[in-house]
Amino acid sequence: MSKSSPILPIVKGARFSAVKAGVKYQGRYDVALMHFAAGSKLAGVFTRSKTRSAPVLHSQEILGKEGDEGFAIIANSGNSNAFTGRAGVEAMHHVIESLGLAMHLPFHAVHMASTGVIGEVLNDKPIRAKIHELVQSLSEENMELAADAILTTDTYKKHASREVIIDGVPVVIAGIAKGSGMIAPDMATMLGFIASDVVISQELLQKALSDAVGLSFNAISVDSDCSTSDSVYFGATGQAGHSLITSEADPRYAIFLDALKSLCHDLAMLIIKDGEGASKLIECRVAGAVSAPSAKVIAMAIVNSPLVKTAIAGEDPNWGRVIMAIGKAGEPAERDEIRLHIGDQLVAEKGAVAHGYSEARAAKYMKGNHIVIDVQLGLGEGEFTAYGCDLTAQYVAINADYRS
Amino acid sequence: MSKSSPILPIVKGARFSAVKAGVKYQGRYDVALMHFAAGSKLAGVFTRSKTRSAPVLHSQEILGKEGDEGFAIIANSGNSNAFTGRAGVEAMHHVIESLGLAMHLPFHAVHMASTGVIGEVLNDKPIRAKIHELVQSLSEENMELAADAILTTDTYKKHASREVIIDGVPVVIAGIAKGSGMIAPDMATMLGFIASDVVISQELLQKALSDAVGLSFNAISVDSDCSTSDSVYFGATGQAGHSLITSEADPRYAIFLDALKSLCHDLAMLIIKDGEGASKLIECRVAGAVSAPSAKVIAMAIVNSPLVKTAIAGEDPNWGRVIMAIGKAGEPAERDEIRLHIGDQLVAEKGAVAHGYSEARAAKYMKGNHIVIDVQLGLGEGEFTAYGCDLTAQYVAINADYRS
Repeated sequence: MSKSSPILPIVKGARFSAVKAGVKYQGRYDVALMHFAAGSKLAGVFTRSKTRSAPVLHSQEILGKEGDEGFAIIANSGNSNAFTGRAGVEAMHHVIESLGLAMHLPFHAVHMASTGVIGEVLNDKPIRAKIHELVQSLSEENMELAADAILTTDTYKKHASREVIIDGVPVVIAGIAKGSGMIAPDMATMLGFIASDVVISQELLQKALSDAVGLSFNAISVDSDCSTSDSVYFGATGQAGHSLITSEADPRYAIFLDALKSLCHDLAMLIIKDGEGASKLIECRVAGAVSAPSAKVIAMAIVNSPLVKTAIAGEDPNWGRVIMAIGKAGEPAERDEIRLHIGDQLVAEKGAVAHGYSEARAAKYMKGNHIVIDVQLGLGEGEFTAYGCDLTAQYVAINADYRS
Repeated sequence: MSKSSPILPIVKGARFSAVKAGVKYQGRYDVALMHFAAGSKLAGVFTRSKTRSAPVLHSQEILGKEGDEGFAIIANSGNSNAFTGRAGVEAMHHVIESLGLAMHLPFHAVHMASTGVIGEVLNDKPIRAKIHELVQSLSEENMELAADAILTTDTYKKHASREVIIDGVPVVIAGIAKGSGMIAPDMATMLGFIASDVVISQELLQKALSDAVGLSFNAISVDSDCSTSDSVYFGATGQAGHSLITSEADPRYAIFLDALKSLCHDLAMLIIKDGEGASKLIECRVAGAVSAPSAKVIAMAIVNSPLVKTAIAGEDPNWGRVIMAIGKAGEPAERDEIRLHIGDQLVAEKGAVAHGYSEARAAKYMKGNHIVIDVQLGLGEGEFTAYGCDLTAQYVAINADYRS
């Protein structure tokens, strides 16, 4: 699957640059710098992995301590600097200190995001050698270049944007992302960087990001494997010109949040469609669960089931596997209450195959590249939509290749 | 992978038969009958799926109500009678009633175990037509025939036995099983049937079975998908000739339990080695966790990780993926405390690759067909060993095939 993205608009106060440093890949952009002007706010959402990378631990440590003089995020591809011990932390500190010196930013105003192979200490020298060039070439027009530099095994760059009107002025949100499952030779990762000129408190910015990520990046799964480096950063420069948003009850917050959710959804779909070896997008809507978290567990069990994924790869409407996945999720479900649709066809209800179900019609539907599985549990009000992709022989081929 | 099993000994009081009924497969044994003489006790462990099959629900309902006049289990392959609603329940009742009549057994003394395609109502007629033949051919010598009849896509039959001496008399335990992951066109299943002449209370028999299953059948995963029909039955005829075991503290119970655990382990290994498309056995030992359940979650996360499984299929010592899987499990783990061995080589410790780690040596080790991953978390006393298999392109090919 592939999908092009529209051209990115400028976010006032947010500048970007990228260089070819040769961290691992040669002859392609592999280090990006993002700078947010004085007065900007930063929010972040990070992997819950217990074996988080050095850069993730650093960002979690300093998030909220950036101060009012602006901040920078430096991102590299080719090496995730995860599980690299003391040496990895020192390499990261060298990069941060060099960048801080060059940009007159304190240690706690410089974030780093790394993606690539795990267990190899990052070589900071090629990155430090390019810091002057990175700082000199910062421009509001370079966000797409940064989208290029963060890619590893992605087959296309991923970006999306939204514009909303708040108090009569246009507010821009622009985002870039990378991720295509976890792939040899890399320990691939989902990274996202979002910039906006919205004028908002840090607390509300964080809340908006957490909410939007929960329904987008945290609702997709290529292979159920969660990286040690997954991170989404959101910098808000506050230069749009409207007055400060500080309350969730403010109707302007709802306008902003809707746009952010929609943008994160777009980026997440770009990632899932670039899933390794994937040929079809699976959209699994679960409703009627006892709670939203329960609906999420069931929806994720379905999109992560190797048997559901291989059936979809084989264009087989093997709905029994969906029932199996609901059953194994361990969440409340009553066999006789389940109503299962594949596409717009009712497949099963009342504990058995639906009257009039046509396997021929279902088989035809499975030939499409966007498969919708709709589960109504009939127990409560909880709902969640998860997104996955099919599991193909190509996925195995990609991931079984020896790294050398 | 393939493995032959030794010949099964006779269990006094347990008789078996099998027929070719043509439930789905033609020209092969597909229905087995097992009869346990008057005075026998029965224990069972069943799938925790929320969408359990009609036969599983029936067995859970009647377990313990068999009475003292003996009981029967009828097993069929080719159709799991799962998610078949009222019609499926009725088909099962017809089989049970016919068998009860033929054997003079009440409804609550007849169990059924079905494995095969899901969502299609079982046709009870071909099974009922064979009941006379099944009952007439019951023999203590036929257990291997039953092992044949329960197979679906398994590539070999699976059985194991143990003999221990209790109070100077030999006590036999013999078991058969089927399972090879879940495979198109079948919703495959793990079924196990164990027989012994041990003299033991029903409560203790159930406890022994639950303990043994937890460390064997519940410690293996071909593809993390849990079937709607997974069941293990254990009938004890009490004809060995020693006096009744009623207490966990009885040293004879420990002897019996050890043998049962070892037998279940053997059967579980036979299943995992028959995993669809599998070429290597993965043994993942986790120790030093905060608790045994915590160790199990981590061990299962490792053997279920598509990235770990594909790396092993590719003979790639990509140990970073094991670290990733530990991290994503969500259980307590301290990056710097983890000691990871692959085979007998220390790969990682103190939050980084181990000093002196040889990737060449690890790559050589990965060419074997039994890969041991040893994780020491250094936090507590919890430990668990899980078993899995690699994920190959053949698995995808098997499971993506259209059912028709």
